[in-house]
Amino acid sequence: SSDWKWIQFQRWIICMLIGIMTGIVAVVINICILELTAVKMHVVEQAIIHCVKNRCLYVPLLLWIAINVVLVTVASLLTVFVAPVAAGSGIPQIKCFLNGVKVPNVVRFKTLVTKVIGVIASVSGGLAVGKEGPMIHSGSVLAAGISQGRSISFNLNTRFFKHFRNDREKRDFVCAGAAAGVSAAFGAPVGGVLFSLEEAASFWNQALTWRIFLCSILSSYTLNFFMSIYHHHPGDLAYPGLINFGKFSGSYEGFELPIFLLMAVFGGLSGAAFNAINHKITVFRLKYLKAKYFKVLEVVFVAAVSATIAFVLIYWNPECKPLGQDPYVRLQFFCNDGEYNTMAVLFFTPPEESVKSLFHDPLGALQPLTIVIFVLPYFFLACWTYGLQVPSGLFIPSLLIGAAWGRLVGNCVNFIWPDDIWAQDLSKYALIGAAAQLGGTVRMTISLTVILIEATGNITYSLPLMAVLLLAKWVGDYFNHGIYDMHIHLNKVPILPWEPPALSTNIQAREVMGTPVVTLRTVPLVSDICSVLSDPRNCHSGYPITDSEGKFRGVILRTQLLILLKHKEFVERGGSSERIKLSVFRDSYPRYFPLSVINVSEGEQQCHVDLRPFLNPSPYTIQENASLPRIFRLFRALGLRHLVVLNDEYKVVGMISRKDIWKWEHKEKQHDD
Amino acid sequence: SSDWKWIQFQRWIICMLIGIMTGIVAVVINICILELTAVKMHVVEQAIIHCVKNRCLYVPLLLWIAINVVLVTVASLLTVFVAPVAAGSGIPQIKCFLNGVKVPNVVRFKTLVTKVIGVIASVSGGLAVGKEGPMIHSGSVLAAGISQGRSISFNLNTRFFKHFRNDREKRDFVCAGAAAGVSAAFGAPVGGVLFSLEEAASFWNQALTWRIFLCSILSSYTLNFFMSIYHHHPGDLAYPGLINFGKFSGSYEGFELPIFLLMAVFGGLSGAAFNAINHKITVFRLKYLKAKYFKVLEVVFVAAVSATIAFVLIYWNPECKPLGQDPYVRLQFFCNDGEYNTMAVLFFTPPEESVKSLFHDPLGALQPLTIVIFVLPYFFLACWTYGLQVPSGLFIPSLLIGAAWGRLVGNCVNFIWPDDIWAQDLSKYALIGAAAQLGGTVRMTISLTVILIEATGNITYSLPLMAVLLLAKWVGDYFNHGIYDMHIHLNKVPILPWEPPALSTNIQAREVMGTPVVTLRTVPLVSDICSVLSDPRNCHSGYPITDSEGKFRGVILRTQLLILLKHKEFVERGGSSERIKLSVFRDSYPRYFPLSVINVSEGEQQCHVDLRPFLNPSPYTIQENASLPRIFRLFRALGLRHLVVLNDEYKVVGMISRKDIWKWEHKEKQHDD
Repeated sequence: SSDWKWIQFQRWIICMLIGIMTGIVAVVINICILELTAVKMHVVEQAIIHCVKNRCLYVPLLLWIAINVVLVTVASLLTVFVAPVAAGSGIPQIKCFLNGVKVPNVVRFKTLVTKVIGVIASVSGGLAVGKEGPMIHSGSVLAAGISQGRSISFNLNTRFFKHFRNDREKRDFVCAGAAAGVSAAFGAPVGGVLFSLEEAASFWNQALTWRIFLCSILSSYTLNFFMSIYHHHPGDLAYPGLINFGKFSGSYEGFELPIFLLMAVFGGLSGAAFNAINHKITVFRLKYLKAKYFKVLEVVFVAAVSATIAFVLIYWNPECKPLGQDPYVRLQFFCNDGEYNTMAVLFFTPPEESVKSLFHDPLGALQPLTIVIFVLPYFFLACWTYGLQVPSGLFIPSLLIGAAWGRLVGNCVNFIWPDDIWAQDLSKYALIGAAAQLGGTVRMTISLTVILIEATGNITYSLPLMAVLLLAKWVGDYFNHGIYDMHIHLNKVPILPWEPPALSTNIQAREVMGTPVVTLRTVPLVSDICSVLSDPRNCHSGYPITDSEGKFRGVILRTQLLILLKHKEFVERGGSSERIKLSVFRDSYPRYFPLSVINVSEGEQQCHVDLRPFLNPSPYTIQENASLPRIFRLFRALGLRHLVVLNDEYKVVGMISRKDIWKWEHKEKQHDD
Repeated sequence: SSDWKWIQFQRWIICMLIGIMTGIVAVVINICILELTAVKMHVVEQAIIHCVKNRCLYVPLLLWIAINVVLVTVASLLTVFVAPVAAGSGIPQIKCFLNGVKVPNVVRFKTLVTKVIGVIASVSGGLAVGKEGPMIHSGSVLAAGISQGRSISFNLNTRFFKHFRNDREKRDFVCAGAAAGVSAAFGAPVGGVLFSLEEAASFWNQALTWRIFLCSILSSYTLNFFMSIYHHHPGDLAYPGLINFGKFSGSYEGFELPIFLLMAVFGGLSGAAFNAINHKITVFRLKYLKAKYFKVLEVVFVAAVSATIAFVLIYWNPECKPLGQDPYVRLQFFCNDGEYNTMAVLFFTPPEESVKSLFHDPLGALQPLTIVIFVLPYFFLACWTYGLQVPSGLFIPSLLIGAAWGRLVGNCVNFIWPDDIWAQDLSKYALIGAAAQLGGTVRMTISLTVILIEATGNITYSLPLMAVLLLAKWVGDYFNHGIYDMHIHLNKVPILPWEPPALSTNIQAREVMGTPVVTLRTVPLVSDICSVLSDPRNCHSGYPITDSEGKFRGVILRTQLLILLKHKEFVERGGSSERIKLSVFRDSYPRYFPLSVINVSEGEQQCHVDLRPFLNPSPYTIQENASLPRIFRLFRALGLRHLVVLNDEYKVVGMISRKDIWKWEHKEKQHDD
């Protein structure tokens, strides 16, 4: 019992460590991006000041392109050659991992390094990306690493946390890591918990949720603590500068709700359009851009195009405003002294700052035309950028697009009712627009609502935000899938949805299962085991064991067989007397060697292995006439990988894997189409 | 497929109806309490004004007692004689219902009526209770009622929502109803969703959660809409008067966190003390107060004592403050004209208003001594009151106690650092105290955090609130269970916890299962069925069916057998040719008749019933060597009621019910003690 308590205690400790470490990594990412962007801004602005006088404007343009290209190349080289799984936001990968699918390298240390350096470089490099998704992925990797108490990459093995070296425990901690990531990315600890539940967990476990919650709090607390020091307000944890979207203080009237709902419909349409275009681009990429150097080149090309478009638009933008109207840092660029360029606010600051400007700049600060000229190219840039081989978040670009057109709606409303007080406040329209666009693209509702509420530091808008996110999701769902699901489908990952497939009540196990099944005896010959393991058609995660009468006796995992072979646990060598310990199985997790490294001599082929002490004698099984929804629920609720199908003589007639269910559903859909 | 979509659509419609109806019921409860209390206040105050001059103070005291006693008697008579299940907050009952336990009458219409009238009467009657728990129960009953599309009490049966007449569907809707109740009680829609997940759901289903979310939004929206009209601000949905705890605008410094954490420890201790005392009282009640009239008398006695204590304390309280310092309604009582009695603020207004006063009254408005004199007796009154035979919520009394001692802590801090700005704001200390006390009593964390954030309309305190709730829970858990779990244990309800019992890995199914098992053949004699059903030892919810070789063929439910007998589905009468329809089974849900009303003649006893078309041929089963945690997870994740245990010849060797697992755990605990 004290042992059990000690394990429980370790779980809490790990979650606290995950929270603190994720917060620190987020601080590093934040500060690096801020500093790098500041340097870049300074260099380019100096060049412009110099060149406006000397008519050499191509110099700052080339300088800007060069800086961006260098940064982005670092990101894409790392991604392509070190950890391709670090590309994109990481949310689809984490979603699959938590659903029970094996995603290679997704929680490796090199992935974390690539993700962190890559996202700093790609955001500072001026791509239309955010850092939020990658922060979530980073939190997950940290969680997986810390919970194992060792690093295989560094050949480091501590005495701690040995108990957690298996898939199930690791998955729970990765849940916590993802929550900590959201919490650090948006300063939204409750949103983090909900995110990890909405996107990830299938079985709601109260104790686990509490640990996730603590982890999430600590992460956001650590971030706030360090950022308050960075912002020269040490200890002031309620300092508004720590809120991601700036502090909202306005309110709204009941009759504005219809306007908000119309915006939600538009956001759903716009999000669906975004996904559809991105789908086409991704399919094109999967087909034609297979060579690694092509991938890097595409990234470089996009970076150059992004910089050029931004530069040209800033150059063309005729709008200059006098400085000092508002509290944000402003860039002069081609304006007269004492003025700033409004387009540069949108294109040249870190994306979070642009979002804050769209939210909070006073009514006259940004002309509608400037916003229109900004949002149209940015939409396509963002669409093109997501899916490139760099770490890239999608939240901030979506928010930016949405805030931009939301502000335009606000301008219209203000134009129609110029004298009403409620129509003076554009920030609410920008916020609703941002929510609608984001909801229409990623199709989350509950966690996003809470994230947005926490990121705005204001509870007042909770009702319209929820309604808008839900409606935008519905409108978007009418046309296509959410962007994460879309990418998962494109990669043919056997992820299980939340509900059993419709109309599957009459489908029985025997129609879905894989058959014939390779079985092993309780004390098989080594040669039998080797032939089963070496046949690529039988590459399952587990094999049923039968006795001499053919009755089912249990399941043994492929990895267990490998370890037994490697340690030469043969009956003839006294294998059953000196038992190999549990720790041997545990220590080889999660990187098992392939069959090829095991040398089994000719003579050993005729030995026997007694599987009985190692097999799982009572796994979940199902009868062959069980219905598909029933099987589905078992898989989904218990996170199974495989299920043995028995007939009424207790004999194995088939195996159902996650992939079988996925295939069946997929086949049905093709029939429908 | 269109049928399936139609059912999905109905689910959304039902959830919307539940949300709106719950909101309306909450509006009715709110307004009735406000109006009744206003009338009571007016009458008593007039009497006091008259009697202060004429020296007849016993008149207002008796008047006050009389009004309270009358109101409270109505509540307790209804509860004791109409629906005893409506007593208390209803949260433990709903928790059990959602866990899969049958709680008689918990979602009946008469329970709703009792709950609504009862809570109005008991809150207006001056008991130390709140209306929040009962609102949650009301939402659940409404959900169960609306989702069935009929009312058996009113003999009303519509064509709608027939598909949802079974336990599983109903449970999902009750989840939504509970969320809507929280949402209406605290104006906390996100908190509502989390509450229903934290306290209720075992299997997180995304589509269901979205429906719950919509339901929750609509409920709080409906409430806000009507209450904004009641407060003469129609349409202003962001009007701060709609926020339950008033609008918080302060902030805190990082170095205040240790103070908050100390308060959390105190809250945990105080909550544990509250639960321990209430436990003793409840055990006493269960033993000695069994007669119905005793129960009513106890309620009347408590009401009289509450009124007397309040009156005496108001009378003794020497503190009078000039009116007009703050925005709340104040009572003069024994003070001079133009002044108000501070104790009356705490004792004589509706409890929500008292909480608001403790939160928001300026620094000097309430003397520490007044608060001390108030909080000590109130603590014991609240302790005594919870568990009485009236509908009574526990949230508001806990918040009131916590806010009171929290404000005292604030006073101390202000005394130590009289000149610091951060120490001028008592509201944060009152809020943290309230959270600590509530967390220490009910031991919820995640949903409570969100509820408190939403009820205060301020995100700033989310970090300290979470930390405080978590710490208070830990401290409290060291001593005893949360109050809801305690009451569930005292009633010996077989509710399953979140985690399998510790140290149960080596326990196998055969040690837990009930044996021998009563089985039926596939085509049994009517007399066999009757003898199985009539034996009280075999009162299970389902029976395994075996064929002539003794092999397991499926499970038939007790209710199905009853219906088959009643409709005389006998083979000899051509029963297998004309099938009774699915709708017959559906229509008799949920009130099945007992065996005694079915007349089976002597001749019919020798007929056969063909069970094969009706039985469930592939229920979840388990082998006899399966481990207890594995069984536990099946029960918990899939919400099972019973599980058939098979041996390796596919023969039935035992049955495991929810109660078997519960008993095993309970027995183990007794061994430990």
